[in-house]
Order: sequence, then structure tokens, then C-alpha cells
Amino acid sequence: MSAPDFSSLRIGLLGSGRVANHLGPALAAAGHHVAFVWSRTAPVAAALAARLPDAQVLTTLASPLPPADLYLLAVPDAAVAPLLATTAWPAGALVAHLAGALPLAVFEAQPAVRGGVFYPLQTFSPGRELDWPTVPFCIEANDLAAETTLLNLAGSLSQHVRRLDSAQRLKLHVAAVFANNFTNHLLGIADALLAEAELPAELLAPLVRETVDKALANPPFAVQTGPAARRDAPTLAAHQAALAAHPAWQDLYERLTASIQTQL
Amino acid sequence: MSAPDFSSLRIGLLGSGRVANHLGPALAAAGHHVAFVWSRTAPVAAALAARLPDAQVLTTLASPLPPADLYLLAVPDAAVAPLLATTAWPAGALVAHLAGALPLAVFEAQPAVRGGVFYPLQTFSPGRELDWPTVPFCIEANDLAAETTLLNLAGSLSQHVRRLDSAQRLKLHVAAVFANNFTNHLLGIADALLAEAELPAELLAPLVRETVDKALANPPFAVQTGPAARRDAPTLAAHQAALAAHPAWQDLYERLTASIQTQL
Repeated sequence: MSAPDFSSLRIGLLGSGRVANHLGPALAAAGHHVAFVWSRTAPVAAALAARLPDAQVLTTLASPLPPADLYLLAVPDAAVAPLLATTAWPAGALVAHLAGALPLAVFEAQPAVRGGVFYPLQTFSPGRELDWPTVPFCIEANDLAAETTLLNLAGSLSQHVRRLDSAQRLKLHVAAVFANNFTNHLLGIADALLAEAELPAELLAPLVRETVDKALANPPFAVQTGPAARRDAPTLAAHQAALAAHPAWQDLYERLTASIQTQL
Repeated sequence: MSAPDFSSLRIGLLGSGRVANHLGPALAAAGHHVAFVWSRTAPVAAALAARLPDAQVLTTLASPLPPADLYLLAVPDAAVAPLLATTAWPAGALVAHLAGALPLAVFEAQPAVRGGVFYPLQTFSPGRELDWPTVPFCIEANDLAAETTLLNLAGSLSQHVRRLDSAQRLKLHVAAVFANNFTNHLLGIADALLAEAELPAELLAPLVRETVDKALANPPFAVQTGPAARRDAPTLAAHQAALAAHPAWQDLYERLTASIQTQL
């Protein structure tokens, strides 16, 4: 394999889910060549490949893979180790996974490849455009050349690229679960309570926007407000009563209140 | 008392905390006359009154209050009932509280006044400007004239004014605690985890913004993602291990995960 031109990589994309569907076209738009898309499900791979110039469709990884400067594993976390073990990798192939919670050490079981991590810290949803230049990329690799290739690739998409070790990345991923998945769930509970009161969901939008603007401009613990923070027992009791139909949310309310109070 | 001109009210402001400090100047800017500011602490009342044209400073409510078209109780929830009971109200005074969790029935104990609710659904922080036209106001009153006065007053500040009964308002207030106070706490946990990993807080900002944009554009339960939603046991276990130094956050993580899974 010739030394890759850093300004344009030939990429093999393994996976055709949400991340692959966002990342593939972004890589092509940045001037890279997505040489193939692999998926177990041919029509899914074909649909993504159709959005990428000159991309081949693969439905098996048993025969030797087409050559590429980099193979990206855009698959569920649990699929990474099996894919690494069972794919017919070209010797010395550079392979990177995209997972926040998987250590670089996952590559130790497959000495035929050079391993790396190419982790975009963002939530990917069908039909929502991403602003790639703002997406932070977290890079880690087993050798300097691999690291350089991944840093340059990330730099061709985003203005926010950094090296992170596996322990830092795991902690960042946990933080992202609190900031994204759990926050979304709380907004879902709020949405459900509004629906019960026959109120429109938009009613909370200005409050949610101001909450987030304030929390991003200040240390959130330092600007905590509300009945928990001011230990307002009558209001806390009124809220528990208002949640009587939802014992699970009562419990969550109680525990979040207690957690806020340990930070005062 | 003569019938108030709806376009300009003479207002007595009881309280000088965060809400009073935001609302007082906004009322003056909308063309109303804040006739007095009351606080137990004279310098605090004086500081607010200095920002309001021709506003008197009151430090006692024992003598008859100066006349006003409307008295606004911008005080902690727990102070509303005692203030109603002990103030020397002019007969038939129109008095409104600003609390999400207090029912209109709190006025039943004080038959000398006409009661109402003037609830701005927003979080108030020192030094942060509010975009008043977007702040939803929730109005309730015991008589139609009072309701009209409060609706018009809210309409002079905001484009989002609605009538809400006490039960709806309480449910909205609980929803606001989930969407604001609890969300802020989760963002605080995320912030603390980043600091532990020696990562800058800004790293999560694009994810947080996209999370909220998505949750405001869709029913949040319908767009839930993450290891809880996909029942990704290895990642959930890795996150528990990463939180080993924080048993309380481990517990919160577990309960939020379980709550997400009941909505799938």
C-alpha cells in the first residue's frame, strides 16, 4: 500500500447505521474516497453507497478486503471485537473504531492490524444535518503514523480535534450519557407531564433554552436553582403529590433532589 | 381607587430578590409605574428602587400600604401566606403571587384582598438578561376584572400569555423542575466528570446543544438514544466502573437507565 496522501484518504466503511450514514457523505464531501460500504444487509449498504461516488457494496468480509488507507468500524460497540476477529484484513491494515466506551486495547486480540480510535462526540439522528466543523473528534492510536492519519482525517471534517487516551474517552462518554441521553429522558418526562395537563410542549422551550445557555456559560453546580437547592419542603411535597400517578418519576424526583442537595 | 388604565398600571412590588430585580425594571420599561418596593432589608429595597423611576422604599407592611392597582408578591413561596395574613392591605386590593406551585386558594385566608396569579415560566439569574417577549406567563384570578388586569399586564411584557388553573400550573411547575433544575444538575455531573478527566467543559457544548434542539423538535421519548435505550450491557457496565468513585452518581445512572428502559 502506498503512503496515503493526507489530503485525501481511500476509506473502507464497515457499517451502514446512523453513524455511517452521517459520516460517509461527510467524508466524501471533504474530498476522501469511500471505496466500499459493508453491511450484512445488501439493500442497506447499497442505499448508503448510492450516496457516495464510486463506492463498492460489500456483504461479506470473508474474502480479502479491497485495499484502503483506513478501515472505519461504524458498527455497534459489541460488534467491534467479532468484526476484528473474523474479517480477512490486509496485513498491516489501519483500522479505527468510532466508540466512546471501547478502549484502544480492543485491538490487541488482532495483531494483523494497526489499531486506532476515531470518536466523534455527537448524537446522530436520521434526517438531522450535523454541523461537522463543530463536532469534537477524539483520536487515539497505537503508532504515531496511525495517529497522524486519524488526526488529519478528523481535521478535514472538524475544527475540534484532540488526542485522548482510553480512560479519558470513557469518562467523556459517561459524561455524554448524562448530558445527552439522561437529559433527553428528563425532557421526555417534562413533555409527558405537559401533555397530561393538556399543555403544548412548546411552553417549556424558552426555559429549556435558557437553562442550557446558563449551564454552558457557568459551572452548572454553581448556578443550581429550584426547590431542591433552596430546600423548599412544601414545594417538594406538592410536587411529590402532583406525581402520584407516576411512582417511578416520584422516585427519580426524590433521588435527583437528594443528589442536588449533596452539591450545595 | 379609580379604574386602572390597562396600558399603564401603578404597581406595588413586595420583594427584592432575583425575580423582583428582573421584573421591576421590565415593568417600568413597559410603561408601568412601580410605586414602591418593599423589603425587610432597606439597602436591598433601595438598590432596586434606584433602578425604578419614582419608586418609594418600604421596609414595613404594618402601616396601610400606598395605593396601587396591583400588588405583586415577588417573595419565596413560603412567605406568601404570612405576608397575606400580616400586611395592612387597602380594602379590595388586587394582589397576585408569582409562584408556580402555590394554588390560587392561598388567597382564601385573606378575604380583604382580590387574589390572582402572575406566573412567569422562566429561570431568573443575576446578571443574565431575559428576553421578556418569549417568556410564557400563566394567569389565574378569582374574578374576571382581576384576570383581565393580569392578562393585560402580562401582555405588555410578553407575547405568550395564557390562562391556567392551579392544577395545570402545578404540573407545569413539576415539569419545569425536570426540564430546568434536574437537567442543570445532570449537566453539572457531566461537567465534574470532564474536570476529573482534565478535559475542558466546552467539549460537551455541541452535544448539549444538539440534544436540546432535537428534544425540542421531536417528542423526546421517541428520539431516545444511548446505551440504556439499546440495552448495551457491556457499555452500561463500563460506565458503572468509570463512576466507581461516585456511588451516588452510579445510583443515579442506574435509575435513569431503568427509567429510560420503561419507556422503550
